[in-house]
This record gives sequence, C-alpha cells and structure tokens, in this order.
Amino acid sequence: MKAEIITIGDELLIGQVIDTNSAWIGQHLNSLGISLYQRTACGDNKEQILACLNDASLRSDIIILTGGLGPTKDDITKKTLCDYFNTSLVTDEKVLEWVTRIFRQRKMPMLDINLQQAQVPSNCKTLWNRSGTAPGMWFEINDKIFISLPGVPFEMKVIFEEEVTPLLKQKFELPFIYHRTLQTCSIGESFLAEKIKDIENELPSHIKLAYLPSVGAVRLRLSAYGNNEENLINEVNVICNKMYEHIGEYIFGENNDSLSEVVGNLLKQKNKTLATAESCTGGFIAHQITSIPGSSKYFIGSIISYDNKIKQQELNVTNDTLLNNGAVSEECVKQMSTAILNKFSVDYAIATSGIAGPDGGTDEKPVGTVWIAIASKHEVITKKFNMGDNRERTILRTSLMALDMLRKML
Amino acid sequence: MKAEIITIGDELLIGQVIDTNSAWIGQHLNSLGISLYQRTACGDNKEQILACLNDASLRSDIIILTGGLGPTKDDITKKTLCDYFNTSLVTDEKVLEWVTRIFRQRKMPMLDINLQQAQVPSNCKTLWNRSGTAPGMWFEINDKIFISLPGVPFEMKVIFEEEVTPLLKQKFELPFIYHRTLQTCSIGESFLAEKIKDIENELPSHIKLAYLPSVGAVRLRLSAYGNNEENLINEVNVICNKMYEHIGEYIFGENNDSLSEVVGNLLKQKNKTLATAESCTGGFIAHQITSIPGSSKYFIGSIISYDNKIKQQELNVTNDTLLNNGAVSEECVKQMSTAILNKFSVDYAIATSGIAGPDGGTDEKPVGTVWIAIASKHEVITKKFNMGDNRERTILRTSLMALDMLRKML
Repeated sequence: MKAEIITIGDELLIGQVIDTNSAWIGQHLNSLGISLYQRTACGDNKEQILACLNDASLRSDIIILTGGLGPTKDDITKKTLCDYFNTSLVTDEKVLEWVTRIFRQRKMPMLDINLQQAQVPSNCKTLWNRSGTAPGMWFEINDKIFISLPGVPFEMKVIFEEEVTPLLKQKFELPFIYHRTLQTCSIGESFLAEKIKDIENELPSHIKLAYLPSVGAVRLRLSAYGNNEENLINEVNVICNKMYEHIGEYIFGENNDSLSEVVGNLLKQKNKTLATAESCTGGFIAHQITSIPGSSKYFIGSIISYDNKIKQQELNVTNDTLLNNGAVSEECVKQMSTAILNKFSVDYAIATSGIAGPDGGTDEKPVGTVWIAIASKHEVITKKFNMGDNRERTILRTSLMALDMLRKML
Repeated sequence: MKAEIITIGDELLIGQVIDTNSAWIGQHLNSLGISLYQRTACGDNKEQILACLNDASLRSDIIILTGGLGPTKDDITKKTLCDYFNTSLVTDEKVLEWVTRIFRQRKMPMLDINLQQAQVPSNCKTLWNRSGTAPGMWFEINDKIFISLPGVPFEMKVIFEEEVTPLLKQKFELPFIYHRTLQTCSIGESFLAEKIKDIENELPSHIKLAYLPSVGAVRLRLSAYGNNEENLINEVNVICNKMYEHIGEYIFGENNDSLSEVVGNLLKQKNKTLATAESCTGGFIAHQITSIPGSSKYFIGSIISYDNKIKQQELNVTNDTLLNNGAVSEECVKQMSTAILNKFSVDYAIATSGIAGPDGGTDEKPVGTVWIAIASKHEVITKKFNMGDNRERTILRTSLMALDMLRKML
C-alpha cells in the first residue's frame, strides 16, 4: 500500500511557506501502516497539477492533495480535479448549510466567494471540516483513492483525523510498520555511530536504523517492516535495550518526547517546582517549558533580565561581579540561579547568560559564549559552552543544554 | 530556466523531520531569477532516487539534491550519483585536508567513516563546506546542472550562498522575477479579498497575487514576471500603493518582516524601552522580541508570572482582583502591565493572562479566553480575545495580537 502527497501552491515553491503538512500526514499514514512513498510540491498551475496527478497515480494507490481550496482566485484545485475526473462542480447542500451557520455564528456577512466553498466536483464524497469552511473531498477511481484537503494546517488535521482515518481503515487491510525512536543529545552523529556500530551491523534486513540530526540533538529511529506485529515490536525492543546499554546516558527520551516534556514529567513525579532566570535565552526556556500542557503544575515563573540593571535589581547580581567578571560569567549565572531559587521559593532553578550575537563578542568571550547554571537547594552546577555564531541556534542549543543539565540533576 | 529540488531521506517521508531546506532554497533561487518548478521528497532508496533524477531532468534544467551525505550507513546519495553518472568515488585531497583539520581543531579522534566524507564521484566539482565535513557537489551533464548538498540546514545554506550562487550567476543569463509581499494581521482572508477585489480584477496577466494565510495573519504576495526589471518594479509598486490605500491599517510590514522586528524598529526609532509581564504566553512574547538581533537596545526584560503567587508578589496584583475577577481578567492584566512598567522603568509594557488549555476552562471563561493589556506612561489599553482551543495557536496568536496592539500604540 503506497501513498503519495501532492502539495499545491506557488508559496511552497518560492519558499514563503514551510510545508509542515506533509510531515504531519507522513507521521499519521505511518502509524496507520501506510508508507508514504513520495511527495511532490507543485505550483498553482493546472497543467502541472494534472501531470503530478498522473505521475502519482502510476506509482501509488492513495494520492493526497493539500492546498488550493481557499476562497480566492489563486485556489484552483477543485476546478483542476473536475478536469482530471472529467466532471463539473455542484453545490453540496450540507456544506452550504455548515458554511452559512459558521458565518452566522461569527456574525460576519456571507460573501459570494464564501458560497463557492460549498461547491465540489460531482463525483466526490465530501469530508466534513469542523474547523473551517473548505470541505475535504474523497474520490475512488479505478482502485485508486484521491483525497483533497485544505492547506491550512489545523483544518487539514481535523479532516484527516476525523474523516480520512476512519475511511482508510475501513477500506484497506493494512500491513504493519513499527517505529521506535531514541532521542539523544550532547553527542555528535559519528560518535554515536561508532558507539553502536556492532548493533547496527547485526540488524536484520527488515529493520532499518536512521540517524536524524538536528541542532544539539540526534534521534535514532528504528523501523521494522512485516506482518507479525508482536514479533516486530519484540525485535525492536531487544535492539533498543542494547542501545540503552551502550549509549543510555545520552538518551533523554523516545519517539516524540521533547526534552521539556521529559523534564516536566520528572518534576511532576517528584513533586518539585522550577523557575528560570534568563538573559541570552530571552524567555525561550520558559516558553519551551510552558508549551507543555499542565506545566503550570511545576513551573512557577521567570525573570528575564535582558538588561544588566534588572540582573542587579531583581536577581541580586553584585556590582563586583558585573565589573570584574562581566554578565557572561560563572559568578553571574550562579548568583542569578540562587536568587531566583529563593525569590520564587522553588526547588530548582535554571540561569543563562551569554552572547547570542551577532554583536557583542570579544577576543576573550567570542559570540556564542554561554554560561548555564542549575541550582537546587543543595547545589549549584555551572557549565560554559561555545554555541557558535548563529543567534537562533545559540538560543536553541542553550535551551536544550540547560534542560539536559537539569534532567541529569533530577 | 527551471529548477527542481529532490530532498532525500526516509525521515522526511515518515514525517520525523520538517523540510525547511526546500523553502529556503526556493526563496534563494527566486531572488536569483530562477523559478523553482517542482520539488520532490523521496526515501533513502537507490532505485527511487534514480527514478526521481530521471523524471526531474526531463522537466528542468537545474536539479538540486539535499540530504543523504552524512557519514552513516543510511546515507546513499554519493553512491547513487555514481550509478546515475556511471562513475565511481575518488578521494578529493582538498576535502580530506579540510576534514582532517576540523577534527584536529575540535580535538576529536578521526574515525574511518569521517574519512569517507572526502570521497566524491569522479566527475564532480566539489563545493567547499565551511560549516561541516560533507562537501557539496556540482555536475554538468548534457546542459543540465545537478547539485548535491548536505541535508543539515546550516551546512546546506553556507554552500548554497558561498559556492552555488556564484556558479549559477556565472553559468546563466538570468531572467527577472520580482516579488513584493504585504504582511497583514487582524483580518481574515476573504475580508481582505473583498476589500481589494477591484485591484485584483485589474491585475495584468504577468503579475500574480497570492493569499498566504497563517495563524492570525495573511500575507499578500505580488509576483511579476518579465525582462525589464525597472518596469516590473514600478508596476508592482503602483499596485502596492493602491493596496495601502484600501487596507493600510492591517499592513504591519513587508516581505520577510516579522511583527517583532517591526515593533523593535519603531521602539529603536523613538528611543523607547519595553518590558513584558506574561502569564499564558509563558515567555513567548519575550522570546519573539529577543529573537531579533540588537533587541537588547530596547528590551529590558520580563517577569513571567505563571503562578498567581508571583502575580501578587512581583506584579502587585491584588488579592481582591484574584478573588473577584480572577487571574484572567481585565483588572489583572491592567495591574500586571502598570506594575512591570514602573518596576522595570520602561516606556511601554505588555501584559497577558489567559487560558491556553487544554484544561482550566469554565463556562464563563472557556479555553482560549485571553486578556491583553498594553501600558505606556499615558494610558493602558486592554482587549479580550477568544483564541480557540489549541494551546500552541493560542500562545502564538496572543503574542501576535499583543505585538500588533503595541505597534498601533507606537
């Protein structure tokens, strides 16, 4: 069972929008046991969309289109599907009723272009869009399934989960693919590979290992293909146990765990609280922590002391420290971490100070120099890093390293 | 002149990695006047990569591959290119020297798999990778150009900018594409379309208008195609002037401006300072502001009062307010904003309090209820929103709305 995705929109080609839909759909197809064979992005151009539909239908059984369903002129997917299937648009009364109701609820006038949202090719089954006005569409032609979804991510997701998934399960007897991913940080890709090369060399042919590096982290994904679900899971588990023996200290979580979620769970389990005192990370650590639902249980708050005045006024960093050691120093992050620990009466505190760049570097402290402190009631640990010369990456890696230091302390 | 991108990696298909490279490459090709015709993502599979290379070379003149150049076993791009071009790998001495130097500098042992990084197909010109060990590769075969780049974004970008761009400029006489994008927020796509429908109907055929909606914002992109650069720019500018007349109040910036950058520039121009007091946004507004280089000139800091205790202790929110109005109330954000304004001695302050969810909603204040206050020395303005039931979107939209309220005040 092979699937393909065709994403439609000039904005994808000129790079004004990053395609997050494809990754999401790929994940969900995989969890259903459908493997995504290929994906294509093409422009808002009828001939090109038709060519992509032709090519994809020669390779795959399920073709999922996203984009081009909006109310405006550049949205041509529905008309192009009519051409492809040699049919025409008709008004779907249920969709019309739904669109009318949405506009009434929002107390907004209904425009002509909004009415067109209720028109669909005559040969499709419409898929209800709880989150918007553009319906999804499902076509079955010569044993091939074509599914057209809106490009707006949350509308696409709702339709995929509530309408597409049940229909796919009903239509196909699906094979089984089992993925398990170990998430590591604080070690590079080739060093990981060296440490687990014996495990890798012994992998059977139906189990694949992939290294997925990102800023400051590498994910190791094992994928097993077959029909016997239980056997596959057992095999992968045995391999993962060996991985934990060899590189356990670097593994912070599995699958889609984020480091902030892992740290949050540890804090919850131990019934402990956390606060941050951030300078160079400018609130990003607090944001990472509070992205997790339920974080209000353990996260108390933060003082972001971007200006040195605030470091002194709110976090008791001494004049001496700023004059003799500077704001980017071990002394400074130590003082910041213990100050926030006491002020917010928490069990653990993170403090960061560094030079994110592009300006502010010196010979002694080049751009990318960062100090991190983690404080508990019993100890303060500190560490110095050089995060390189990219502002965005420095903020991201500092956040990751700080959370990993806290994880190890917990 | 048509280009295509082929991104290689199972991780893209199973959705474990979001492809940001393609968008970046698309943008840069466009600014060179090369239009990206199509892009394809395929797996770590030799036959499939070969098929994609064949198909792309039938459609386009420049084929850019990313991914599969790492040191580990799942990286097969170089071997596949050897098959495609019917050649074999040879060691590039310059690359070998570079890789050896990197490992010596980092004081890390050089592994066998790292040595393989210096091997490239015999028929390529290597492209220097200042940021890593995997070189890029440039092939010219029968008037087609094939370019292979690493998948790690910052390595790909360095090679593209420093090596690929000059070679493309040297090789081709490039046509001209001019894009100008107006960034709007606080208005929906169909309402924008209604307001500018006369302008849209009068567009000449060589100028296209696209609506690019995202959470809380819609970008309007005008693209003009032709050979006379000056004329195209003039034509687009005349249209943009009309847009400003019709929808100017919703336009916060152009092209790649972010709202936090626009607000930052306004603060810098007026020599004013800013602080935030955040509850439901948990530091995200501070992070958005401090993502901008040079933000330390105007951003002083923040107090993130996730716990109500901190709202009282640090931001003078009264017991009365919390008991009678609750933390998610106009009274509360008013007190938070004026407290941080005075405590941090700044000219402007943003305060947020809301229910990001998924828990914590009530009938009276459902999940998504958010209050925002913007304070200056002269006034405090407040606004209530319902941001819907998605935590991530609520945080993002609240941040956007707060920055837009501040922009309008400035």
